[in-house]
Amino acid sequence: MELRTMILGHFLVVSLALNAGLLYRDYYNGKHKSQDVFSFNNECKNASLVTKRDAHVAKRAFLETNKAPSSKALSEIINLDHGDPTMYERYWQQMGDKTTVVIPGWKFISYFSDVRNLCWFLEPEFANAVIRLHKLVGNAVTENRYIVVGTGSTQLFQAVLYAVSPPNASEPISVVSAAPFYSSYPLITEFLKSGLYKWAGDAHKFKKDQPYIELVTSPNNPDGLSREAVVNQNEGILIHDLAYYWPQYTSISSSPADHDIMLFTVSKSTGHAGTRLGWALVKDQEIAKKMTEFIVLSTIGVSKESQLRAAKILQVLSDTHEQKGHFRENEPFFDHSYNLMAKRWKQLRDACEGETEDCESFLRDHKILTRSGKHFGESTKYVRISVLPRDEVFDQFTERLSSITST
Amino acid sequence: MELRTMILGHFLVVSLALNAGLLYRDYYNGKHKSQDVFSFNNECKNASLVTKRDAHVAKRAFLETNKAPSSKALSEIINLDHGDPTMYERYWQQMGDKTTVVIPGWKFISYFSDVRNLCWFLEPEFANAVIRLHKLVGNAVTENRYIVVGTGSTQLFQAVLYAVSPPNASEPISVVSAAPFYSSYPLITEFLKSGLYKWAGDAHKFKKDQPYIELVTSPNNPDGLSREAVVNQNEGILIHDLAYYWPQYTSISSSPADHDIMLFTVSKSTGHAGTRLGWALVKDQEIAKKMTEFIVLSTIGVSKESQLRAAKILQVLSDTHEQKGHFRENEPFFDHSYNLMAKRWKQLRDACEGETEDCESFLRDHKILTRSGKHFGESTKYVRISVLPRDEVFDQFTERLSSITST
Repeated sequence: MELRTMILGHFLVVSLALNAGLLYRDYYNGKHKSQDVFSFNNECKNASLVTKRDAHVAKRAFLETNKAPSSKALSEIINLDHGDPTMYERYWQQMGDKTTVVIPGWKFISYFSDVRNLCWFLEPEFANAVIRLHKLVGNAVTENRYIVVGTGSTQLFQAVLYAVSPPNASEPISVVSAAPFYSSYPLITEFLKSGLYKWAGDAHKFKKDQPYIELVTSPNNPDGLSREAVVNQNEGILIHDLAYYWPQYTSISSSPADHDIMLFTVSKSTGHAGTRLGWALVKDQEIAKKMTEFIVLSTIGVSKESQLRAAKILQVLSDTHEQKGHFRENEPFFDHSYNLMAKRWKQLRDACEGETEDCESFLRDHKILTRSGKHFGESTKYVRISVLPRDEVFDQFTERLSSITST
Repeated sequence: MELRTMILGHFLVVSLALNAGLLYRDYYNGKHKSQDVFSFNNECKNASLVTKRDAHVAKRAFLETNKAPSSKALSEIINLDHGDPTMYERYWQQMGDKTTVVIPGWKFISYFSDVRNLCWFLEPEFANAVIRLHKLVGNAVTENRYIVVGTGSTQLFQAVLYAVSPPNASEPISVVSAAPFYSSYPLITEFLKSGLYKWAGDAHKFKKDQPYIELVTSPNNPDGLSREAVVNQNEGILIHDLAYYWPQYTSISSSPADHDIMLFTVSKSTGHAGTRLGWALVKDQEIAKKMTEFIVLSTIGVSKESQLRAAKILQVLSDTHEQKGHFRENEPFFDHSYNLMAKRWKQLRDACEGETEDCESFLRDHKILTRSGKHFGESTKYVRISVLPRDEVFDQFTERLSSITST
């Protein structure tokens, strides 16, 4: 019974840790030191299934490079920190060869996709698939928008910072986001010590009468809540990170999002994290041009192979919804994903109860790797856990939790 | 005859403009202003076929986004600035389906390729193909090296800067390269106004008794000459950009290159520029770790699709050499490419003679877009021209040159 009180639903909030792999550096604590072991600073998102009392949970863990998490045994590590969206693998497997891409060796050699497009390395097929999907879901306006493709939304976030920062200001522009914010934002903003922009922390505390950039993540990472800008000043530039604004994570508003700069990514919508592909919908031509310029200077465009594969997958995803009545063997993607999420949340709630002062340490003692709430400016009573691993891993996790709380 | 004297082999040095797409910003001239039209700041490399008297040529041109170069007519634009290596397209087309990749939609969803590898997003297949190719060509040591994969060597160059710059120095470390240097180096080094490193220009002029980073590009871009470090101090960190150190561009030394940090890229070796894939061979573990960290912060890894396709292409390339006797229908890749280069150089020499004070303007008047030598710290008498377009475009170019010089 002691253990029962150590893990409690109220504190153990499980987020959708989707965005893996950021090496841990202690920027968040202002220390700026490298570490020898690899750890993964994961992006997370609570599903709409999470009630508000569950909010604000973070987790932290170290995945040592020579220890792959793999086993079934109770003694082996369950790594729920790195947030790899392998949960989606089974769905795509069941789709068979519908999403298979075939690329001949002589095709797509060129740097260029469409020289008439402002974003000249954007494959038209991918752009079309993006527009179709947004129209289907109704989550964002695509009319009169420039589409800028990036190597994941991580690169696009940096492209926006570059595009909207004044090039010749006497000091870097402040970048803020309301706490709790995605813990990678400060790392990415600071790692090159840019003279163009600087991380300025919690948007709630930003009082300077100066230009600023506010990141609005909605649904928010890590707490899953819908958000609006919080700094109430005229000189602000807003970036809307809508990575999780998809039906499996949250309810979609009746009117599509219509902001100046909106970021999306394949890894959050379909689960294809390894494809490293995101897109921005941008109202202003000059901003879209400068974002394109950033991506050219950073990586001279974006993988054609990734764009071709993502185009195919997004088109098939749309097909599963539009042909719902025709091909009953294929459950529509968002329906399937929503249901799977709901099931996992139920499993988790059934398995977990308790409270502890240091939830991350407690779980680590049981070889469950998570991220402590302290990295999100929260209590150590909270952790963040990925609920997007493969079924076997998630089942093993909830079984282990049950066995801990029942002993 | 007047025109004959305006274009002379001595000044019109044709480089292999391979690396396309950098938006032009006037960093090189210290102006730091954006431009409305797109122009492309191309990487170039003279083949070993270029004699020394041909050295140091650069070109500059603007490719307006709504004007695609496409025609056969004398009146239409021939754009030889953007350096797209479509020359290689025909070879790969002749290889048929040998290099075709097939990727099922459910595969390679994960962020991770190999969690036991320091560079955990490196696909083992790609790593194996890289090692095999280097052993075949004998151009670089791979034993006891870490392979770090990047979104082109452009990203890897930035990863190295991040990895070797002192994190807490009072001022940014100087980055130098012997003039004439690849004109993108200063742009890439400066565009984020990093506090970690700064562009310090011509390595020949670097006299400060301070730590520095020296870029050694060999064969050099834009003049094709073999190079060694020129700053003779103890505190230097060397980066060897060996993008063009392949048999079609230069002769390969009897002993493989054995430097601490060596950069390579698929777009220069096989012509697959759209794949956006490069690799670094790194001796020091800590540098390889920090480069990996950069790529994680910058783009959370590298497209799996690009790595899989490149792996296949590199393996087939190696096959064409190792199975030379067995499959005579497939000319070995480097032999084919070397011969094609030789042919083009001959065509060009036959067509071009003359001298002009402003070669770029002169050629632009004839709708041939090039880059002026001034962007490489050279005279406007020089231009750089890509010799890697498709055959039709190159033939059209040499025909037009001939018609100009004969009138």
